[in-house]
Amino acid sequence: MRILGIDPGTATTGYGVIDSDEGELRVVTYGVITTPANWEMPHRLVWIYDELCKIVQEYRPDTAAIEQLFFGKNVTTALTVGQARGVLLLALAHAHLPIAEYPPMKIKEAITGYGNADKPQMQMMVRQLLNLEETPRPDDAADGLAIAITHAQYMRYEALVA
Amino acid sequence: MRILGIDPGTATTGYGVIDSDEGELRVVTYGVITTPANWEMPHRLVWIYDELCKIVQEYRPDTAAIEQLFFGKNVTTALTVGQARGVLLLALAHAHLPIAEYPPMKIKEAITGYGNADKPQMQMMVRQLLNLEETPRPDDAADGLAIAITHAQYMRYEALVA
Repeated sequence: MRILGIDPGTATTGYGVIDSDEGELRVVTYGVITTPANWEMPHRLVWIYDELCKIVQEYRPDTAAIEQLFFGKNVTTALTVGQARGVLLLALAHAHLPIAEYPPMKIKEAITGYGNADKPQMQMMVRQLLNLEETPRPDDAADGLAIAITHAQYMRYEALVA
Repeated sequence: MRILGIDPGTATTGYGVIDSDEGELRVVTYGVITTPANWEMPHRLVWIYDELCKIVQEYRPDTAAIEQLFFGKNVTTALTVGQARGVLLLALAHAHLPIAEYPPMKIKEAITGYGNADKPQMQMMVRQLLNLEETPRPDDAADGLAIAITHAQYMRYEALVA
């Protein structure tokens, strides 16, 4: 089962692709989609949509998981993240991918066992769980991997209890 | 000059198309794109994107105007409106349309001369400005027309002062 995890944002969207095979996790790729702040918003959204379409076409995930809304941020941030999230969801839907959503606390819990884990703890665990020699960079890419791992764990749990 | 005005929302996106010819305004069409609350969000976004693409293909506007973010609402509302707005901007960008944005207060000012105008005042003025026999319904469609009229007035003003 190949899983695409996405941490949405207008300036930087992190993504990670992993293979999950009976509890064994293996990293396939990870990275970020970035758009310059001086581009017009429609142009940035076209870029984000196109880049995600390319990633899906290249790595052919079976399913996708995306970070759910956060509550701590302000209304303007929520609106701009929402715009990026809208075109990301559209790209996934156009590729006919099932889409799961996880709030930040569930992701932290799934990765570290602790819903209030900080960034270094998260990154160390992502590195361990994927058996990587180095911490994935940049941070948003590591977040994308964390979301993919979360989905792998939830799907495995559901398979075990079914 | 044919102008498409859009009032974005996930449940209801209002739109209005008008022709503006040397200050003469004429309504071409107006309506709403609606999605049921029980649909999954990606499905709703696909629908909104597709419906706007159809409207653009059918009415061939020269330019578009969309309501800018509001500040009064809460973070969850901003995120969901943001998602709808993201796919609407994407559809307009895919159609290579220039896109203008106006905050609610500018739209009220352009239509009624008063930035705090209420809904009935706005609707009455939209009806008068477009020389309609009845008030356009539903409200979101009238809002779409108001945004289109706002853009017509700003473009005319810019043409006059240029």
